[in-house]
Amino acid sequence: MSFTIYSALIPMAKHLLNNQSKILSKAASYAAENSIDPNSLLNARFAPDMFPLTRQVQMATDTVKKGAARLAAIDAPVFEDVETTIPELQERIVKTIAFLESIPESAFEGAETRALKIPLGPGLLVDFTGQNYLTQWVLPNFIFHTTTAYDLLRHQGVTLGKRDFLG
Amino acid sequence: MSFTIYSALIPMAKHLLNNQSKILSKAASYAAENSIDPNSLLNARFAPDMFPLTRQVQMATDTVKKGAARLAAIDAPVFEDVETTIPELQERIVKTIAFLESIPESAFEGAETRALKIPLGPGLLVDFTGQNYLTQWVLPNFIFHTTTAYDLLRHQGVTLGKRDFLG
Repeated sequence: MSFTIYSALIPMAKHLLNNQSKILSKAASYAAENSIDPNSLLNARFAPDMFPLTRQVQMATDTVKKGAARLAAIDAPVFEDVETTIPELQERIVKTIAFLESIPESAFEGAETRALKIPLGPGLLVDFTGQNYLTQWVLPNFIFHTTTAYDLLRHQGVTLGKRDFLG
Repeated sequence: MSFTIYSALIPMAKHLLNNQSKILSKAASYAAENSIDPNSLLNARFAPDMFPLTRQVQMATDTVKKGAARLAAIDAPVFEDVETTIPELQERIVKTIAFLESIPESAFEGAETRALKIPLGPGLLVDFTGQNYLTQWVLPNFIFHTTTAYDLLRHQGVTLGKRDFLG
């Protein structure tokens, strides 16, 4: 067993996405049990210029979907940002995991040295090796958004613990 | 250049820790400019049963310090959890980075298959390969705590953006 880009990214991403889906189920149960509009959870944000929960989940899935595709040198599917309910966000997670599982492990061979030009904002194209793209961008960003989604739900009172996040 | 446990962990950890120190400097400036007691930032938490900012920084540094030590099969230094100010937390970050830099890259050779028994709680000893320990525990936990520290400061109004987190 050697350590590869695939083994650094794909099992962890699937694991944390599955955990995020379970966390969203707990949020739905919490809302139902406490007569809370689920939208109040989905629209929660930590600052006026931070994204709400729905967008955190969309960005987590997008980060890992695009990250895996670029590292494997294939096209990523496009997911429109149209989710407005917890089940719809969970469906997006299902689609993301299915995409990750559809990429053969062999597609990641040599990804660590692949030269990538990554658009990080309007007019901003950044050069990365595959290894640096994974460790400096994909993983910190992906875990940032899954963590922020968890923190938002904790802050709204949903009964969760770190084990829900880590699995 | 091959992809290794060292290259998946150490450069990213140093980078995010350096960013966290700069974020704490911005928090100190924000407190000074707005006549806010820095303790109100350091004691901020998202839920009564979540840890406050000070502890998030302590746990981020501990996770990566112990994680690197176990993967390199060396002893980690002990840092007492005594910090009560922003400069003291930044000093802890400096000590953590110095420890990470003190480990020779060669110490991580073969770490992916190393059999580890990791204490995860009272009476709970979990078997990991080095690779699984890194991807299922060290990285998600480390980034969880650095993200939560960032989110806490954002929620308290400190002027920050994602670029402060990612560098």
